[in-house]
Amino acid sequence: MRHYSARIIITLKNGVLDPQGKASAGALSGLGFEGVNSVRQGKVMDVELSASDDATARADLAAMCEKLLANTVIEDFEIAALTERQMA
Amino acid sequence: MRHYSARIIITLKNGVLDPQGKASAGALSGLGFEGVNSVRQGKVMDVELSASDDATARADLAAMCEKLLANTVIEDFEIAALTERQMA
Repeated sequence: MRHYSARIIITLKNGVLDPQGKASAGALSGLGFEGVNSVRQGKVMDVELSASDDATARADLAAMCEKLLANTVIEDFEIAALTERQMA
Repeated sequence: MRHYSARIIITLKNGVLDPQGKASAGALSGLGFEGVNSVRQGKVMDVELSASDDATARADLAAMCEKLLANTVIEDFEIAALTERQMA
């Protein structure tokens, strides 16, 4: 088995309302940050996993997103990084 | 003024307990994903902002993180991407 570090980015699909992002944008303006036009908030998941090879690791990560980590009705997910780790 | 799209990644500092990540890792194992060793959850913020130049945009974004978006006692932040947008 090989050991991997992966970064998954989960963001709201375009057009989906983002109350958290709106609240952050409002608070930033209230703090005097005039230049903020919008804020969209999502999740980042750093996953350490074991898999037989890169392709299997990617497939497992996609399945994890589809089954649990992302709500695929309103969220998109992206495997932003996948690096193999040498175990000490 | 120039218009920018920025991606900010906010993650827990090493050593800080991550109950959400632990819960996700447990749930993934429960769903049959044997290879998951750990999950660390953080936030991603996609910010649209106006600034006079790149350096000012970066400085504003860092100040936004320090004042509001990140809890710098337990979280690290990173400006993962900053791209200028041509307004139509």
